[in-house]
Amino acid sequence: MQLTYLLPAPMHVTPLGETEMRRRADLLKQWAGDDTRITVTAVDRGPASVESAYEEYLAVPAMGTALRRAEHDGADAVVLGCFGDPGLDGLREIASSPVVGPAAAAMSLACTLGHRFTVVTVADGVRPLLRRIAWETGVLDALHEVRSVELSVLALNSDHDAAYAALRSECANALAAGEADTLVLGCMSMGFLGAAERLTAELGVPVINPIRAAIHHAQTLHRMGLSHSRRAYPRPPALADDVVDTGLLREAEHPMEVTA
Amino acid sequence: MQLTYLLPAPMHVTPLGETEMRRRADLLKQWAGDDTRITVTAVDRGPASVESAYEEYLAVPAMGTALRRAEHDGADAVVLGCFGDPGLDGLREIASSPVVGPAAAAMSLACTLGHRFTVVTVADGVRPLLRRIAWETGVLDALHEVRSVELSVLALNSDHDAAYAALRSECANALAAGEADTLVLGCMSMGFLGAAERLTAELGVPVINPIRAAIHHAQTLHRMGLSHSRRAYPRPPALADDVVDTGLLREAEHPMEVTA
Amino acid sequence: MQLTYLLPAPMHVTPLGETEMRRRADLLKQWAGDDTRITVTAVDRGPASVESAYEEYLAVPAMGTALRRAEHDGADAVVLGCFGDPGLDGLREIASSPVVGPAAAAMSLACTLGHRFTVVTVADGVRPLLRRIAWETGVLDALHEVRSVELSVLALNSDHDAAYAALRSECANALAAGEADTLVLGCMSMGFLGAAERLTAELGVPVINPIRAAIHHAQTLHRMGLSHSRRAYPRPPALADDVVDTGLLREAEHPMEVTA
Amino acid sequence: MQLTYLLPAPMHVTPLGETEMRRRADLLKQWAGDDTRITVTAVDRGPASVESAYEEYLAVPAMGTALRRAEHDGADAVVLGCFGDPGLDGLREIASSPVVGPAAAAMSLACTLGHRFTVVTVADGVRPLLRRIAWETGVLDALHEVRSVELSVLALNSDHDAAYAALRSECANALAAGEADTLVLGCMSMGFLGAAERLTAELGVPVINPIRAAIHHAQTLHRMGLSHSRRAYPRPPALADDVVDTGLLREAEHPMEVTA
Amino acid sequence: MQLTYLLPAPMHVTPLGETEMRRRADLLKQWAGDDTRITVTAVDRGPASVESAYEEYLAVPAMGTALRRAEHDGADAVVLGCFGDPGLDGLREIASSPVVGPAAAAMSLACTLGHRFTVVTVADGVRPLLRRIAWETGVLDALHEVRSVELSVLALNSDHDAAYAALRSECANALAAGEADTLVLGCMSMGFLGAAERLTAELGVPVINPIRAAIHHAQTLHRMGLSHSRRAYPRPPALADDVVDTGLLREAEHPMEVTA
Amino acid sequence: MQLTYLLPAPMHVTPLGETEMRRRADLLKQWAGDDTRITVTAVDRGPASVESAYEEYLAVPAMGTALRRAEHDGADAVVLGCFGDPGLDGLREIASSPVVGPAAAAMSLACTLGHRFTVVTVADGVRPLLRRIAWETGVLDALHEVRSVELSVLALNSDHDAAYAALRSECANALAAGEADTLVLGCMSMGFLGAAERLTAELGVPVINPIRAAIHHAQTLHRMGLSHSRRAYPRPPALADDVVDTGLLREAEHPMEVTA
Repeated sequence: MQLTYLLPAPMHVTPLGETEMRRRADLLKQWAGDDTRITVTAVDRGPASVESAYEEYLAVPAMGTALRRAEHDGADAVVLGCFGDPGLDGLREIASSPVVGPAAAAMSLACTLGHRFTVVTVADGVRPLLRRIAWETGVLDALHEVRSVELSVLALNSDHDAAYAALRSECANALAAGEADTLVLGCMSMGFLGAAERLTAELGVPVINPIRAAIHHAQTLHRMGLSHSRRAYPRPPALADDVVDTGLLREAEHPMEVTA
Repeated sequence: MQLTYLLPAPMHVTPLGETEMRRRADLLKQWAGDDTRITVTAVDRGPASVESAYEEYLAVPAMGTALRRAEHDGADAVVLGCFGDPGLDGLREIASSPVVGPAAAAMSLACTLGHRFTVVTVADGVRPLLRRIAWETGVLDALHEVRSVELSVLALNSDHDAAYAALRSECANALAAGEADTLVLGCMSMGFLGAAERLTAELGVPVINPIRAAIHHAQTLHRMGLSHSRRAYPRPPALADDVVDTGLLREAEHPMEVTA
Repeated sequence: MQLTYLLPAPMHVTPLGETEMRRRADLLKQWAGDDTRITVTAVDRGPASVESAYEEYLAVPAMGTALRRAEHDGADAVVLGCFGDPGLDGLREIASSPVVGPAAAAMSLACTLGHRFTVVTVADGVRPLLRRIAWETGVLDALHEVRSVELSVLALNSDHDAAYAALRSECANALAAGEADTLVLGCMSMGFLGAAERLTAELGVPVINPIRAAIHHAQTLHRMGLSHSRRAYPRPPALADDVVDTGLLREAEHPMEVTA
Repeated sequence: MQLTYLLPAPMHVTPLGETEMRRRADLLKQWAGDDTRITVTAVDRGPASVESAYEEYLAVPAMGTALRRAEHDGADAVVLGCFGDPGLDGLREIASSPVVGPAAAAMSLACTLGHRFTVVTVADGVRPLLRRIAWETGVLDALHEVRSVELSVLALNSDHDAAYAALRSECANALAAGEADTLVLGCMSMGFLGAAERLTAELGVPVINPIRAAIHHAQTLHRMGLSHSRRAYPRPPALADDVVDTGLLREAEHPMEVTA
Repeated sequence: MQLTYLLPAPMHVTPLGETEMRRRADLLKQWAGDDTRITVTAVDRGPASVESAYEEYLAVPAMGTALRRAEHDGADAVVLGCFGDPGLDGLREIASSPVVGPAAAAMSLACTLGHRFTVVTVADGVRPLLRRIAWETGVLDALHEVRSVELSVLALNSDHDAAYAALRSECANALAAGEADTLVLGCMSMGFLGAAERLTAELGVPVINPIRAAIHHAQTLHRMGLSHSRRAYPRPPALADDVVDTGLLREAEHPMEVTA
Repeated sequence: MQLTYLLPAPMHVTPLGETEMRRRADLLKQWAGDDTRITVTAVDRGPASVESAYEEYLAVPAMGTALRRAEHDGADAVVLGCFGDPGLDGLREIASSPVVGPAAAAMSLACTLGHRFTVVTVADGVRPLLRRIAWETGVLDALHEVRSVELSVLALNSDHDAAYAALRSECANALAAGEADTLVLGCMSMGFLGAAERLTAELGVPVINPIRAAIHHAQTLHRMGLSHSRRAYPRPPALADDVVDTGLLREAEHPMEVTA
């Protein structure tokens, strides 16, 4: 199958650049296995990284265009390259093939491995967002808590050893403090650290890498011939038929104000 | 106070046009009372109407720019002009003054008038969205159900009498069928029909006009000197200080793909 | 509009006396604005203060009589003068105009300002009562916790500076300890301290004065022509038509016992 | 043990009169068995029957006095004689011995007999009240629905055969319509019809008589040496020590109003 | 009535032996009172004690046979001799008389005595099991937490004084730490220590002995002529009519494997 | 990988026999793909089919023995061959490799494809069981309802065309009646009909075959190097180390009774 991993940011013009995109593509390929071709796509317009709700909104329109192009180019499934699952509901409306949110995929997998899971993410500020995703996925009951290492995504990517140490420490805290029996890494950059595999071995509980959860989720859907429900994500009535442009935007020369 | 009513669509280039914007401004002024100045602002780029999750995402970036400009121009509060509360969490992150979502305002008001409320909206397709808003507002327990008249926003605006008849019929069905004791009109175009006031009288239960709920909500916050919590909606770290442009977008000349 | 603030206690025969009633009326007037006339009414029979469920029950019968008289005298809305919303459901059954519970009004407002709110009240003993009000209002999901300063209402009223210091300390604890992003003062005497306004400024999160929340709630309902739902609060079948006496009580010369 | 069944109404001055009180005492004695002495006590002041929230509030003050007297006279436990459990939380605050609410006792028993129970009561208007009791008891999850026969309490008591027929019909509807596997009669007058026992036999599911559930609940607590938790129902600080009068009421010669 | 207390383990071949069975029978008789005959039955095959989910499963088949025999021998009700309520749903399917789970009985009783209860049990490992029972009983909302003394059942039975001290300490911790107002002992061996009665007196909150809760629950059902709902626990279609053997098992000479 | 599909019944001595086992193995192989070896194992002792909670309990002990043997023989993962996920928690305690319950796997997959899913199963009697699995998996919020075709497992297997027609009809009913957007077939025999694939195409919503969901779930865990959490499913302290026999059972020559 052809799987597109869709970055919400124009990573090729950020310091991480095309090198990091290639590193990620290689890891994705290694995890996905021989029968899956991987394309990593970066949008041409979006926030440098997604660490707030507003940045999520900024990311979605260009993701929509890129998604439509990926389908046109033969993608069998698209995995969103951000643990905030940015625009998942909207993108599914305009997609013809499965669109997988890594948070939803990782959390639903966590549900099956124990009674309560904890998400360890980058910043406390995204806790409401992750709780909302858990609720939308229907698994909020199983989410014990969201904890964070309070590192920026940039910091995570710049010093992998320090990042791993911080992550391991917070995961251990999560197990010491509470009733969680399963952990989920709540950031794609954490996933690309290769941390989940070491943490699973060192901490003795399953620690889920959301990237791998998302890839195998996409493969499962592809093999079963399933996609997200059109009933849940109806196609916008005004959606244009041409391949790439969704045709839903209207533009004016200027904004307009009237007062009363 | 100065209140900006922010339309997510460039209504001035749609068939409704500036005439409808002026009609709405006049109604808003009438409902708001003498001590509130009203500005109705339409963005310069956005979907013609918001009837899907994807259109919501398309609407938000231009709303962000318009919101920043409104604040620069002296707005004391901004009311979103769509019952989907598009981008509410993200827009609050970049705002300095209160941003009011009509759905959240109307549903929280409904909570105080009875035990269970029903939302009557335009289309079944937005049910999941409205349930999510109720959950995010913390009032899902009080939401009995979401029903719809299955009329497009366009149809609502083009024949007011037929729209009222359809609305009255579905509201009556809602009361006959279930345990709801309070109704909320789930669309701003319904609010501008003046229907809530007639329905309250004819049906004998409170029927909430979300526009008026939102205006008075904004006035209440302004009088109490309150705004949404910065703790709940933290300012994005990378937000630019200049007045209008949020500065969060990065652009590239083209998208980028790597394969593996 | 004419707004009656209904004290559940005969404050005029307690140490606070008519002086405090007048002070409260002045503050209410100041908060309500020019277009609202304020009457503060104290019942002729009731507990000195309401700090238990039993005292709530003792308060309600005389409140019912006072409510009926206030409506007869032209009240457009009645705000209950106690954060326990004593008798709210029952009083709404016999009222023709809106009856506003300050706890319900403040909690539903808090819902709209963030994700989770904490109530800071006078005593741990009222925690179950406040949780029940949150549930009845439909907003329990958004209530993070109830904390208390463990000061009696008397102590709150006798040394305003000490009361403010205790309140500020507990509000700061609430923010340090948990996930709340919005605070509600859970006692009317706290509201009349003028504390919420200072705390909002000093703590950087919205701190809701339940009195002002209730007044503006009443004004909002009046302007929108709405009241609580008769479907939710049906008129007791046996209610007398005469203006003040509800006519629902039956009296005997003595109680009666039979044994078996 | 000595068990007091406390009527919230002065039944001896209603049409049912002392005759019905004696009939009920005899049934209570028969159900309770030899080792329990029964006293049926009617208050000297209260509503004729309790069919609204307001009537509940009117009933409680005289119930408090009667409860204190019953304890003074040796009651080991008090069962409230109304399925609305009027004043349960408040009365427990001032009581030294167990106070049993029949709705709480019947619903908690129903929880143990199946997965979901339905309450069949007299009128739709009490549905919110019964749902609140289920929530306060912690068993709302197990409450499938509340249905009603729409008969007044008076009608129930005046034609037992018609009442039984209506009750049987609605119970059968409850089983046909939904997922309930256990039924609870939601009115004490229904209990004194002797209907539960016949319905259990005829319908093939457990139908709980709330009176018997409450009596055996009181006996269980007495035998186990338990009462309700003082932590949950703390004694009001100002409660007088003298035996009967709770001493919590303050009285003035007249109400007081101040305006601003 | 004839009440059978059904041990899930062949206690007569464990170190506790028939002596402990007799001690338990005497205590049960003392708690049950004169009108109830007690039989303590130990199965012929089962785990030495039930401290895991798997041991629960191992216990149930022999319990089924013993239950059928007890009914054949005249039992009016059967109480399961383990706080995990092993096999409760399945055993009810094959029983003709009430089958009482002590956890369900004790938790539903706890619901009626306060707002939130805590279970103090032997080991953290059974927390998920006890939460599941609370959910199945419909009372999870009222369960504050599950705490444990981390003593094996064996240790509990071998040094009663040390066991009491550990139990008292953890119960005091439970009250100091949280919002619970009522405690439940979460292990039958704790019940047979006679600890609940001392703890109730010493800690000032109700501490429920699950054995006594279960016995009186069985007596209540017997007196009311009720049993668990056949609708909730339908008889397995293939159940044999002969008295003891359920006839549902099929046996082969060996297991079978096929590969592909 | 080596995957064992573990039948809870000795199918080789039922009318379906070894032929059906081989048919199922072939389908499993076809769905699993080339890189997975399949073994279908039938226990030597168990109920003919599992259509009640009691039959589930009867099935587990022999499943435990078979599971231990499968692991000894090299199984990398075990899928339970019954949609009731019989003994899942207990079997995970004694397993060293992943044990997959098809209901948990299918329901958690359904969560990711829409907002609400409906399970269509064989009989109304298993509804409480399936709701309990949804709760234990943490996905009850997303379960819209459980519907049934009211066909025995035997009937399902004996006339595939009639079974498909009944299934299609009930699935269509589910979509017509309610808010579900995704369907799950709630029985393994339904899965082996090959019905899900046809229904997905004909009904236009995803219809999940629980067998394929379970297989791919096992593959995903294997590829990610994950298993269920030992913290959630701790090994029973007394578990024997020898390979196959769990060693947890104790046996006596006869049961024992003492009376009091």
